[in-house]
Amino acid sequence: MSKQFDVLVIGGGPGGYVAAIRAAQLGFSAACCESNPYADPKGEPRLGGTCLNVGCIPSKALLHTSHMFEEAAHDFADQGIQVGTPKIDVAKMLGRKNTIVGQLTGGIKGLFKKNKVTLLNGHGSFIGAGKDGGWQVKVGDEVVEAKQVIVATGSKPRHLPGIPVDNKIVCDNVGALDIDAVPKKLAIIGAGVIGLEMGSVWRRLGSEVTILEAMPDFLSVADVDVAKEALKVFTKQGLGIHAGVKIGEVKVSKKGVAIDYTDKDGKAQKLDADRLIVSVGRVPNTDGLNAEAVGLQLTERGQINVDGHCRTNLPGVWAIGDVVSGPMLAHKAMEEAVMVAELMAGQSGHCNFDTIPYVIYTSPEIAWVGKTEQQLKADGIAYKAGKIPFLANGRALGMGAPTGFVKMLADAETDRILGVHIIGANASELISEGVVAMEFGAASEDLARICHAHPTLSEVVHEAALACDKRPLHF
Amino acid sequence: MSKQFDVLVIGGGPGGYVAAIRAAQLGFSAACCESNPYADPKGEPRLGGTCLNVGCIPSKALLHTSHMFEEAAHDFADQGIQVGTPKIDVAKMLGRKNTIVGQLTGGIKGLFKKNKVTLLNGHGSFIGAGKDGGWQVKVGDEVVEAKQVIVATGSKPRHLPGIPVDNKIVCDNVGALDIDAVPKKLAIIGAGVIGLEMGSVWRRLGSEVTILEAMPDFLSVADVDVAKEALKVFTKQGLGIHAGVKIGEVKVSKKGVAIDYTDKDGKAQKLDADRLIVSVGRVPNTDGLNAEAVGLQLTERGQINVDGHCRTNLPGVWAIGDVVSGPMLAHKAMEEAVMVAELMAGQSGHCNFDTIPYVIYTSPEIAWVGKTEQQLKADGIAYKAGKIPFLANGRALGMGAPTGFVKMLADAETDRILGVHIIGANASELISEGVVAMEFGAASEDLARICHAHPTLSEVVHEAALACDKRPLHF
Repeated sequence: MSKQFDVLVIGGGPGGYVAAIRAAQLGFSAACCESNPYADPKGEPRLGGTCLNVGCIPSKALLHTSHMFEEAAHDFADQGIQVGTPKIDVAKMLGRKNTIVGQLTGGIKGLFKKNKVTLLNGHGSFIGAGKDGGWQVKVGDEVVEAKQVIVATGSKPRHLPGIPVDNKIVCDNVGALDIDAVPKKLAIIGAGVIGLEMGSVWRRLGSEVTILEAMPDFLSVADVDVAKEALKVFTKQGLGIHAGVKIGEVKVSKKGVAIDYTDKDGKAQKLDADRLIVSVGRVPNTDGLNAEAVGLQLTERGQINVDGHCRTNLPGVWAIGDVVSGPMLAHKAMEEAVMVAELMAGQSGHCNFDTIPYVIYTSPEIAWVGKTEQQLKADGIAYKAGKIPFLANGRALGMGAPTGFVKMLADAETDRILGVHIIGANASELISEGVVAMEFGAASEDLARICHAHPTLSEVVHEAALACDKRPLHF
Repeated sequence: MSKQFDVLVIGGGPGGYVAAIRAAQLGFSAACCESNPYADPKGEPRLGGTCLNVGCIPSKALLHTSHMFEEAAHDFADQGIQVGTPKIDVAKMLGRKNTIVGQLTGGIKGLFKKNKVTLLNGHGSFIGAGKDGGWQVKVGDEVVEAKQVIVATGSKPRHLPGIPVDNKIVCDNVGALDIDAVPKKLAIIGAGVIGLEMGSVWRRLGSEVTILEAMPDFLSVADVDVAKEALKVFTKQGLGIHAGVKIGEVKVSKKGVAIDYTDKDGKAQKLDADRLIVSVGRVPNTDGLNAEAVGLQLTERGQINVDGHCRTNLPGVWAIGDVVSGPMLAHKAMEEAVMVAELMAGQSGHCNFDTIPYVIYTSPEIAWVGKTEQQLKADGIAYKAGKIPFLANGRALGMGAPTGFVKMLADAETDRILGVHIIGANASELISEGVVAMEFGAASEDLARICHAHPTLSEVVHEAALACDKRPLHF
């Protein structure tokens, strides 16, 4: 006899666990199966997927520690804090990170209990249509029948041909979070979010970090001014960033790697390093899903093909998160999760993909929402821009964080905010006001007329809004 | 021959300098006179008033340094950062603070130049009506005529009878920012914003701090849950907080103070301390303004009497900031400043006093906007509440800042957000999203349906919104 559920969610990452919880809140009997690659030492399933286990959360723990380390090493003396030369106990730093991960993954199990979601241990694999209109899915050794299935299998790191990842010498995001000593020389292939964040962690702790990026422009996904400032600041911090390179042969030994590459001018270069992190994007996880057995359609890029409401080509089968199109961001997956659960319940679930914020947790942080200036130009949209540096902000000076700016883009005619781009301290938190404003279709004048607490970094957002009308008060 | 201006602003604090700049932007010839109590060593006027010179900004510089000191002393070891026992060089800490203040006050002079505001050095004092309908004001030795006058003279610390402030042993906000060595024992009278912030600074640096508060309830201006949590957390940090006390005799010697007081149970108590900070509120600054010469009306509390648009009883005379009613907050003064300048220009200047955020920069920070739960109860408004702790938030754990919560209050019937109350890391920045939402008349469901970047502290605001509808996803 198979287990029966209204809803089965395949995958317990941020998309999957939120979908299961929301479905259960809406009255469905809901189960979530997790193939459990991050099992704890006792073999217990660990929910939270890449994000919680080997992504957003552990990286933020390491970023915090390494940021504090750098403050101690470089900024304390000027403030009158005397600590000598700080040393890092990497094992202890990693242990703290693991404790936080354990706490949060355990927390999701608690949420499952509270919301009455059944956790199934095992990989979800389609068998075929169910007896009464739903679907049969194999989970481990069991057959599960569910009226509706949500595929939330996430993504995995893209590896490069000829560069085998052992997560010791050559690491992807998983190994990068567990490097057990500060590498003297660290090479990174890929200057995206993971490359920049992990590069920052180890640079702060003392590594000589070189990042090789194939794309000709650094951080081309960000607003052009932000990317320019970021390159300037990161380079000044000591990150060696080389864009427009072509990776050649990579020799891996027990002691390190030797990388041959061609630089942007076509010159042959060599880079030796003790460790290599490969962070060149992620690919959707459809392995073992047995999509073909039920005719679940994939895109050419290997994603599950969905419409704007995360419906697949199969009735009652939905897909969300990294395994479908759109940015591979936990909060995007969570939004889709809620939308799908509510649509299943006959509600008007909806996801505004135009107001999904992006964050890079470097120092300074980078965050944005909406269109970049280069997108507006390409789309031929007339816009005005307001750009204000943190240097003019009292809170930023008090924090010793005067770097960066807020740039707001608004429609030249309607004044509606089209994008907010921040590089600076706490950009990750400051962006939320921009998202809320854009969701309300705010004009730049709206934000300009809203009171912002003094002294806060959010005043720079306020000034950027004022600057859209060329009337900043503090710049 | 007197100097002639369209607009004269009396006082160069946050209200005054913003009013002058905005007036100039709108095409008025604008001057701002500053009586200059914070003159730099060369006697140059220092703009920025209390806030910049002896308030918000210098306190935030000291709060940052002392926060870093405390992190180093208490939180580094668990993260694997080895620094030994940190020491503080108070002179260096104060020097950095003074540099920041100098930088920002100098910056306002630059803004005056850029916006063509004339800076006049001297106290502004009404003489009488001007020759063609405006007003004559004496500034230093000069007579200035202006068609319109904005009084922005701010406030000064309230002192207690029998406790003379020398700003060495007994300090108000001015001396509290310049204590030249960590006092072994520090007494503070008044558990308001200044008392709590300065108490936090010196406690973190090693002082044994005792705060005596006359009001029976601690932090009664904040939401009742926030006040309760704050008292618990601050007490655990080592701040000795005694509410409901009655201060008796205070003996001041060259070495310290001896305070007799009666505790909340009516018991006589004694407190010895090396230093005493008196922070029992502030009084509006109308000294030397010569208000009576022109019949400028004051309230019973000594404030200048204004309507909801900062108009005084005299035509063409306005008053803003601490010298009028409402919270004594720099950003409230700045809002009024812009409103008045725009009203003078015939625009529809407006100030929404219901959405002015409040911040206390303790650790954790406290921030709120809108009504507290006790206010809603007193007003008989039916509400629902969503309260989510930071403990469940990945970013907070990564930062080692799991303390506190976000509490959202929404109308039981319309769901409109009535208040957002935060105690936790970065509350000062998180509150801005609440302000923007309230300015747009948002329902809690609006915030619940807006994507929040993961992992950020702002997700706790999101969850609090979801909790208003009893459907949090992560708690």
